[in-house]
Amino acid sequence: MLKQAKGRIGRNAVLLAMLEEEEEAEITTHLDALEWRYCKGKVGSMELQKIVSSIETAAKRNNVVNSELYREMHALYHAIIEAVQGVTRGQVELGDLMRTVGLRFAVVRGKPYENDEEGEWIAVALYGTIGAPIRGLEHETIGLGINHM
Amino acid sequence: MLKQAKGRIGRNAVLLAMLEEEEEAEITTHLDALEWRYCKGKVGSMELQKIVSSIETAAKRNNVVNSELYREMHALYHAIIEAVQGVTRGQVELGDLMRTVGLRFAVVRGKPYENDEEGEWIAVALYGTIGAPIRGLEHETIGLGINHM
Amino acid sequence: MLKQAKGRIGRNAVLLAMLEEEEEAEITTHLDALEWRYCKGKVGSMELQKIVSSIETAAKRNNVVNSELYREMHALYHAIIEAVQGVTRGQVELGDLMRTVGLRFAVVRGKPYENDEEGEWIAVALYGTIGAPIRGLEHETIGLGINHM
Amino acid sequence: MLKQAKGRIGRNAVLLAMLEEEEEAEITTHLDALEWRYCKGKVGSMELQKIVSSIETAAKRNNVVNSELYREMHALYHAIIEAVQGVTRGQVELGDLMRTVGLRFAVVRGKPYENDEEGEWIAVALYGTIGAPIRGLEHETIGLGINHM
Amino acid sequence: MLKQAKGRIGRNAVLLAMLEEEEEAEITTHLDALEWRYCKGKVGSMELQKIVSSIETAAKRNNVVNSELYREMHALYHAIIEAVQGVTRGQVELGDLMRTVGLRFAVVRGKPYENDEEGEWIAVALYGTIGAPIRGLEHETIGLGINHM
Amino acid sequence: MLKQAKGRIGRNAVLLAMLEEEEEAEITTHLDALEWRYCKGKVGSMELQKIVSSIETAAKRNNVVNSELYREMHALYHAIIEAVQGVTRGQVELGDLMRTVGLRFAVVRGKPYENDEEGEWIAVALYGTIGAPIRGLEHETIGLGINHM
Repeated sequence: MLKQAKGRIGRNAVLLAMLEEEEEAEITTHLDALEWRYCKGKVGSMELQKIVSSIETAAKRNNVVNSELYREMHALYHAIIEAVQGVTRGQVELGDLMRTVGLRFAVVRGKPYENDEEGEWIAVALYGTIGAPIRGLEHETIGLGINHM
Repeated sequence: MLKQAKGRIGRNAVLLAMLEEEEEAEITTHLDALEWRYCKGKVGSMELQKIVSSIETAAKRNNVVNSELYREMHALYHAIIEAVQGVTRGQVELGDLMRTVGLRFAVVRGKPYENDEEGEWIAVALYGTIGAPIRGLEHETIGLGINHM
Repeated sequence: MLKQAKGRIGRNAVLLAMLEEEEEAEITTHLDALEWRYCKGKVGSMELQKIVSSIETAAKRNNVVNSELYREMHALYHAIIEAVQGVTRGQVELGDLMRTVGLRFAVVRGKPYENDEEGEWIAVALYGTIGAPIRGLEHETIGLGINHM
Repeated sequence: MLKQAKGRIGRNAVLLAMLEEEEEAEITTHLDALEWRYCKGKVGSMELQKIVSSIETAAKRNNVVNSELYREMHALYHAIIEAVQGVTRGQVELGDLMRTVGLRFAVVRGKPYENDEEGEWIAVALYGTIGAPIRGLEHETIGLGINHM
Repeated sequence: MLKQAKGRIGRNAVLLAMLEEEEEAEITTHLDALEWRYCKGKVGSMELQKIVSSIETAAKRNNVVNSELYREMHALYHAIIEAVQGVTRGQVELGDLMRTVGLRFAVVRGKPYENDEEGEWIAVALYGTIGAPIRGLEHETIGLGINHM
Repeated sequence: MLKQAKGRIGRNAVLLAMLEEEEEAEITTHLDALEWRYCKGKVGSMELQKIVSSIETAAKRNNVVNSELYREMHALYHAIIEAVQGVTRGQVELGDLMRTVGLRFAVVRGKPYENDEEGEWIAVALYGTIGAPIRGLEHETIGLGINHM
């Protein structure tokens, strides 16, 4: 069974990605108390490749994942691609379809289930804007991917 | 240009869908002050059709959209389908792929741009769980669709 | 090389599906002169299965394809599915996504290339409306699939 | 309710894109009489980005849309992407899948519903060929996207 | 690094699904020697749901996965869906698109990497026929999904 | 009706792509006896375009297809794209999604049905690894596409 709201990995990742910097302390304090690993960053691009690699790099550097183990990179990769699907809604493409994104991302790793044997899971949340490559011609977008580690 | 964080239609819709009932007053008070229209509801199903119709019915009954005008129903419909893509991440199917969802949804209609001529837009946010049709075998999921009215 | 406009299989199929009955004589006279096989029909449904089977049945009954040969049914099937993708634009689903179609279809079989060795090809064209299962809440839609026989 | 055949926005857009130059006068005269805005053009490419930007540029230059308003560009953009899905049938990709298109496009903006409150809609039609990047190795393709303005 | 050919989890799963019963002893003997868990079965249906549940049931009953742990069912589920994508090639649908499958499946769980810390992975292989719901109107199809446990 | 196991075009193509060089003689001897045309090759890339063109080039050079006839190239092309869908499972993209493949491929052309009128068909099989552009961070993948010639 999933834990209650405050123990939810997706909810925490989404709030971390979506809240303004001055609002995020509540979330990070809570994640620190849970002893969950996490990181946060920003990336803007017309290339999906750059979105994927920015998140992977941040997660490695902040020790959210162990880059030496493929099983950890594999879990993270699929969580990223699932989050990107929420952002792109249909065609998992940016520049080829003449659009660009400006995103904040959060990666959270922890134990979201009451049963300890369910072990660790990872959540990737993306929040920002998507639109034409012209300033202001854009609307908001969100995505969340979750995977077992 | 999009308004600052508090004036963002997607962010408000996501928070309305995701926050617990005791936390949502801050959002609804804010949306009331903006004089934006909105509604909130819950739906659980293995059938996407039921998800779509529950959101449409709630939006009509709460006068978020005018069900007599196809252009309003068309705008809402595409926002729902885009939100569902974030929830399903890849294949826009539930029961056929042996999975079910339990979702809270929010629909918000307002003016998210500084330029008044950008007019009204609609946001549909979904938050909840997706998984096997067995209690507890599930993880979180989110989706957001935005369209011009 | 494809033949000029009047010898184009896709163009003929689209016009046959799209023109009103009183306008179509020009096309059918032309197809008869070319000695190409063709048929036309109507189908409305929330179920894709019914769309596919209506077109298959019409093509068999009018001897546009030989239902005894899998290679002919395989060629037709893929042309139908490609045409349906133009109609559904993204998710190849109708009722599951709470939408319905009212379509006219045309199937044309002939030799559209200057080089006779390119042999016979088949075109499936669909034209009509797609929308909510409520009269009038709909817009037009089109699709064309082409395959070698 | 949609207007009868001659008042249909999608049908007009498809005919404008598909008919030869010497045949199109009937359509343009009719569109002028309706006081609908429209434009027509050609584009060939292995890059979807170029297809999208050519149509956007033509629609802006011919005042079919107001490029200063994101809501108009947003409506046009989604109509283009939907039309492209009919052209690509499955994977919304060209060069990455080793194929190229030669297309004529038409954009039409008008009021296709009997009820005046349904307001303005936009239709993007594409017609041409798709195939290998070798002259002659190609077949026809079509796409139509429709959106409320 | 992946182990050499005989230690490959996907290759073993594909051969187990594809070889005739009289040929499979070589594979099962080898899997037994590796002390890997596996099962094999057959399923024919126009409903994807039945394909998914047949594989899940076989994997549970043969103790290839522990049905009490969501993380194991989650790993298996995604491997199944990936394998189904190879079978359906494009639209992850059967009956809705008027087609049916007759499949043999194999699920294999083991350690396919030289580095022991990469731990256990799961492979789902499908092999059989796909086609119209008429005997003989069908061709072969294959799919393979791999996930970390 | 499809022929028995040894006469199956997909099974032969998959084994030809998947077996080690020292194991493949059994398959090639059998294909030679059937007087079926076939070829085998290797390709590694982050670009799908290169995968498609490598297979097309090998099939042309080995006279598995006649590159002068579009109908043969069209049949081969769709078989390749279907095989690629098994390899990519969801998004038909490699480098854009920050992943790369190392594949062996086989193309087989023959008569897989008991009824001689079903004529020639073509099978494209792919087997290898997919993963991050870092050596060792990869797992196996397979794909099979079949089409009538």
